[in-house]
Amino acid sequence: MWDGPHLLTTHDPDGDEVRALLERAREESFEPDALAGRAVATVFFEDSTRTRVSFSLAGQRLGARVVDWSSRGSSISKGETMTDTFWTIESMGFDIVVVRHGESGAARLLADHAHCAVINAGDGTHQHPTQALTDALALGEALGREQGWDFSGLRVAIVGDCVSSRVARSNAGLLGVLGAAVTLVGPEPMAPAALGEALGCAVSHDLDAEIGRADAVMTLRMQLERGAGTLLPEGYDYRAGFALTRERAERMKPGAVVMHPGPMNRGVEIDGAVADGPRSLIRKQVAAGVRVRMAVLEEAMRRSG
Amino acid sequence: MWDGPHLLTTHDPDGDEVRALLERAREESFEPDALAGRAVATVFFEDSTRTRVSFSLAGQRLGARVVDWSSRGSSISKGETMTDTFWTIESMGFDIVVVRHGESGAARLLADHAHCAVINAGDGTHQHPTQALTDALALGEALGREQGWDFSGLRVAIVGDCVSSRVARSNAGLLGVLGAAVTLVGPEPMAPAALGEALGCAVSHDLDAEIGRADAVMTLRMQLERGAGTLLPEGYDYRAGFALTRERAERMKPGAVVMHPGPMNRGVEIDGAVADGPRSLIRKQVAAGVRVRMAVLEEAMRRSG
Amino acid sequence: MWDGPHLLTTHDPDGDEVRALLERAREESFEPDALAGRAVATVFFEDSTRTRVSFSLAGQRLGARVVDWSSRGSSISKGETMTDTFWTIESMGFDIVVVRHGESGAARLLADHAHCAVINAGDGTHQHPTQALTDALALGEALGREQGWDFSGLRVAIVGDCVSSRVARSNAGLLGVLGAAVTLVGPEPMAPAALGEALGCAVSHDLDAEIGRADAVMTLRMQLERGAGTLLPEGYDYRAGFALTRERAERMKPGAVVMHPGPMNRGVEIDGAVADGPRSLIRKQVAAGVRVRMAVLEEAMRRSG
Repeated sequence: MWDGPHLLTTHDPDGDEVRALLERAREESFEPDALAGRAVATVFFEDSTRTRVSFSLAGQRLGARVVDWSSRGSSISKGETMTDTFWTIESMGFDIVVVRHGESGAARLLADHAHCAVINAGDGTHQHPTQALTDALALGEALGREQGWDFSGLRVAIVGDCVSSRVARSNAGLLGVLGAAVTLVGPEPMAPAALGEALGCAVSHDLDAEIGRADAVMTLRMQLERGAGTLLPEGYDYRAGFALTRERAERMKPGAVVMHPGPMNRGVEIDGAVADGPRSLIRKQVAAGVRVRMAVLEEAMRRSG
Repeated sequence: MWDGPHLLTTHDPDGDEVRALLERAREESFEPDALAGRAVATVFFEDSTRTRVSFSLAGQRLGARVVDWSSRGSSISKGETMTDTFWTIESMGFDIVVVRHGESGAARLLADHAHCAVINAGDGTHQHPTQALTDALALGEALGREQGWDFSGLRVAIVGDCVSSRVARSNAGLLGVLGAAVTLVGPEPMAPAALGEALGCAVSHDLDAEIGRADAVMTLRMQLERGAGTLLPEGYDYRAGFALTRERAERMKPGAVVMHPGPMNRGVEIDGAVADGPRSLIRKQVAAGVRVRMAVLEEAMRRSG
Repeated sequence: MWDGPHLLTTHDPDGDEVRALLERAREESFEPDALAGRAVATVFFEDSTRTRVSFSLAGQRLGARVVDWSSRGSSISKGETMTDTFWTIESMGFDIVVVRHGESGAARLLADHAHCAVINAGDGTHQHPTQALTDALALGEALGREQGWDFSGLRVAIVGDCVSSRVARSNAGLLGVLGAAVTLVGPEPMAPAALGEALGCAVSHDLDAEIGRADAVMTLRMQLERGAGTLLPEGYDYRAGFALTRERAERMKPGAVVMHPGPMNRGVEIDGAVADGPRSLIRKQVAAGVRVRMAVLEEAMRRSG
């Protein structure tokens, strides 16, 4: 998971780094000036207020100066390359750069030549490791698996447009590391067999067959603003087959939980009654996100030596 | 005025809360770390750099971490509801959320289910309580009414598109609580008799008749960017009847003052010579705004227990 | 250079102020709370993330509260004048206002009536003094002229659209003060003889004749987003005559350096191999920028008494 001071993916063969980080985020025994005198830049080439603010708040709680380098109106729109923008930020003396970019592999490309720590806050359809850590923290605490972070025996269904989703890829990887059995669920173009093979997950095109067996259902956001529908035939009734409706939620196992990375399209991929219902971990996921990012920033700084 | 830790309106039957807050803002004896370790989010679904920065500076002066959750490019543009955005912010652990929204009643809706304090920074055409408190602070200090904040005997004319203005509604309410006699002045569609009845104010469609009697003239901003003119017949000469021109200002009483909530359209609703002239409290209003918001944030935190 | 607490231009007849500031930025012995309790506003009527963040980081490192007053969505788009926006900011109690504006002379206009310190972060095609100070700091340190900041004997070529460039004007002035010999290089419409006369510089329309003589080549950014090409005849091959290509860089003197204020258009005015090559000071310029701005903010505060 860690590559020197950089956090780029959730890949972690033996899971030790993942478990250590989850444990640190669970304890929440952060020193309030762990990052005093340090500077953190949030550099979002794609907008995401929620993730950006979560990192900003986490950094500030550790005493860091946090500066936002927004992409709108910035050098990027003046023809500067991503790497030149990054080197400019690095040259200003930032200790940690939190970067989101629409291209898969962007964070890795920057980290390969960086002198500061690089945290991947989402790169294309590739990875979003702090989201996956956040989800694991919320899930482990909700299902009583926070002692040792052993998820073996848990069945998790990730539902929606898995093929376009870095959240799905990051979660599938991380949950596998912790021992959970993951099934990607969606219409065939959104959950193709090849993706399951690549990620080491089962694949299903029948949510109704899965709904009663899962300990957790992670519903992905339908990314309408990115033309999510283009993978499906015209007139395809996504909701009929794959939305987490109130009726489907009622068929879930006792104690099983519902998750969503946000922002939600209520009435599209999830019903409001489910999002607000007793199974929902959605607000706990948000709270867990700040704790995970505090642990990530602290560890990145520690690894920067 | 206060509803638990929330500040939503200027409604305050006996005026005790209003006077206490004005007195606190007047004293300015704030502890510089009254909000140390606390986090404040400014959440503006409508843009207003001036109000947002005023709150941000106020919060920072009290030692709070202040994070802006701007609406542009945020989850809102991805289809998220206002309440989901709010719950996300609340779940991150913010102590106070300062919210502006284009819909009347938005702040109330959020506060009704909130675990953090909600400060209304303007909701539709309904209320903008910190603006009204700001205006009362500046007015009371300018006219020597800061001992006891008793405005009885003062005549205040609020001039312009009162019907569309949350500033007019909030000020009319607050000035009434303090004992001032308020007259709404404007063309009939902008200052209808029914509005005066609802707010307990007089109404006049003749600024020239009022100008010599008022102790204070509050000129409202002509909200040209919201199509302010649509209430008036085509070709209506607003300036001839209702602009605060140099000529009109010369007919004001000795000691009478001119106010404007900003931003001004010079040469539209107010002449530059009046805005910059000796009667003008406009810059004092801005300075008063930061003091009022410090008092509001401090009190909201105190009430959060 | 200084006009009371204001920094508006690089004009400094005897160079004492320039040298003192460069020396302060070189030493970097800033007190971390030199600006504690002070508030700095960055007010960019034109976007520039790089310059804005550089000032923001500099201010935060000195302990100041730094608030961004962005122009997008602000009062400006609601018809407010620049001076009213400024007075609003000043009235809020900011100690230092860092301002960028598209009109030459804007910073001067504001400073003339200001009660706070005004720092010019770029006004139209006129001046950008902190950029010139930054470049002088990086250049002096690279060429071993940081003892006494005497640049006599150095030849500096400023290459590109000099006539449209505040960076060229500010650098030409400042380098002249320090004793360097400056040549403006570009196609005739971009480096007209009259500009050289006005700035006291030589002018050349032949980069290949200059390239072997210069100790430093400052390549200006081709401001494609401002229609940089309109000064040139249709089909004019700018790159053939004036780009800093790898071939040209190889003909530079031993030890001669390459500079660019950023953001770069790689492959337009400068080759990537040159920007990333051993002669390049480009990243050092960025780092120097933060140090210069710390020295500037510290001195502005000192001069505010």
